[in-house]
Amino acid sequence: MANSPSGETLTERIVRVLETFDTDRTVQTASEIGRRARLPSSTAHRMVAELVECGLLERDEDQRVRLGMRLWELALRGSRALRLRQAALPFMERVQARVREHTQLAVVENGETLFVERLSHPKAGANITRVAGRLPLHASSSGLVLLAYGPEDLRERVLAGPLEAVSPETVTDPARLRRDLVRIRREGVVVAPGSVEGVSTGVAVPVRERPDHVMAALSVVLPRDAPTGTAIEELRAAAAGITAAYGAQRP
Amino acid sequence: MANSPSGETLTERIVRVLETFDTDRTVQTASEIGRRARLPSSTAHRMVAELVECGLLERDEDQRVRLGMRLWELALRGSRALRLRQAALPFMERVQARVREHTQLAVVENGETLFVERLSHPKAGANITRVAGRLPLHASSSGLVLLAYGPEDLRERVLAGPLEAVSPETVTDPARLRRDLVRIRREGVVVAPGSVEGVSTGVAVPVRERPDHVMAALSVVLPRDAPTGTAIEELRAAAAGITAAYGAQRP
Repeated sequence: MANSPSGETLTERIVRVLETFDTDRTVQTASEIGRRARLPSSTAHRMVAELVECGLLERDEDQRVRLGMRLWELALRGSRALRLRQAALPFMERVQARVREHTQLAVVENGETLFVERLSHPKAGANITRVAGRLPLHASSSGLVLLAYGPEDLRERVLAGPLEAVSPETVTDPARLRRDLVRIRREGVVVAPGSVEGVSTGVAVPVRERPDHVMAALSVVLPRDAPTGTAIEELRAAAAGITAAYGAQRP
Repeated sequence: MANSPSGETLTERIVRVLETFDTDRTVQTASEIGRRARLPSSTAHRMVAELVECGLLERDEDQRVRLGMRLWELALRGSRALRLRQAALPFMERVQARVREHTQLAVVENGETLFVERLSHPKAGANITRVAGRLPLHASSSGLVLLAYGPEDLRERVLAGPLEAVSPETVTDPARLRRDLVRIRREGVVVAPGSVEGVSTGVAVPVRERPDHVMAALSVVLPRDAPTGTAIEELRAAAAGITAAYGAQRP
């Protein structure tokens, strides 16, 4: 449908335009968007005008362009991510109040860990994750949970590599990673010191939708050598609460 | 670009497809989407396939379709809404901890109040708003703040009507509404008993981006006859905090 001369669909081009925005680049000109999306300038200007017309993008006073509130609304209103985070937020707040570090909720998206919610205590330590940010599945404690409990074919695809070292301590040996995943499924928790950043330890547990299906990972990021007992206990209680709350609000 | 026989752009059709999803309808078949978006069945199936291909929609095990995590990610990653709510969340948590009722953050989107964040105390009272939900500007306390401090042309457009009565107590008389807006700008706060629901009182204050620009409204929903003093005080302190935090994280 409506393919461009390059054989690309217009939908793919819209996605490419939206992809040029990120946390560090929230406002751009149509020309900048065209350059970053590798689109001819006239095409970029026409697409931006059309996306502004629909409210998916907005112009500011200087005629520069940013993502539209309408896009945000459409993406959230009927989304699984919103349902999940609304169910999870009260329990995440409790974890954060007790553990006083970063508390995060993550799901699998296209073979990577996608963080859908994060609460940060003002005095919490380092943490490179962001809401709507990603990390490879094998690197963070959340990703390891999602990988351990995820579908077999996803696990084999990741184990087949390449396994990028996000930090010097990320496990990149497939045989060791496979053993780790078996242990995670047995113990129901991941404690991953240094696997994302040398100064911190990720602790994550599975959040189940049904007894046989894990829909998310709930985690905290502790200082490297902090004790993990309380965090694990709080995370497990919160995960059970999220499962119940998510089920209760099923439409 | 790529207009359909009806003269509608493909972008508009994509928006129409996404609009068929909402809080109460998170999963649909391609045929249902076509019917609700008033698209020919073959067009709907083709568009759904293309949107699934790009990750903007996802199929579940039963081949039904839901909004994709990729859409959520694209919409949030570089968005003003995310920046705003990340700045606001710690202050909203404090308001909620002290006031123990619903705490909400809203912006103007296309002439309506759009709620971008909401925290709910487990024991809080009635509240019809939702994250990514909307209300007319003249109805809720948040909307009245946004209207009072918003651009002149928006205010005149809303005052020109029609002014829908969301509840029997919503102010729908333009002359009275105009006087209310003047008072709101003078006092810097809205207390709106019953204007959305008879059982509750909305209390809202402006959240400024700069001294001369209000970017959002911060509000709590109290039981109808609850005292408002503490809430106003907490909301004002939180609004000042959000302004500072939002400015500090400017990219």
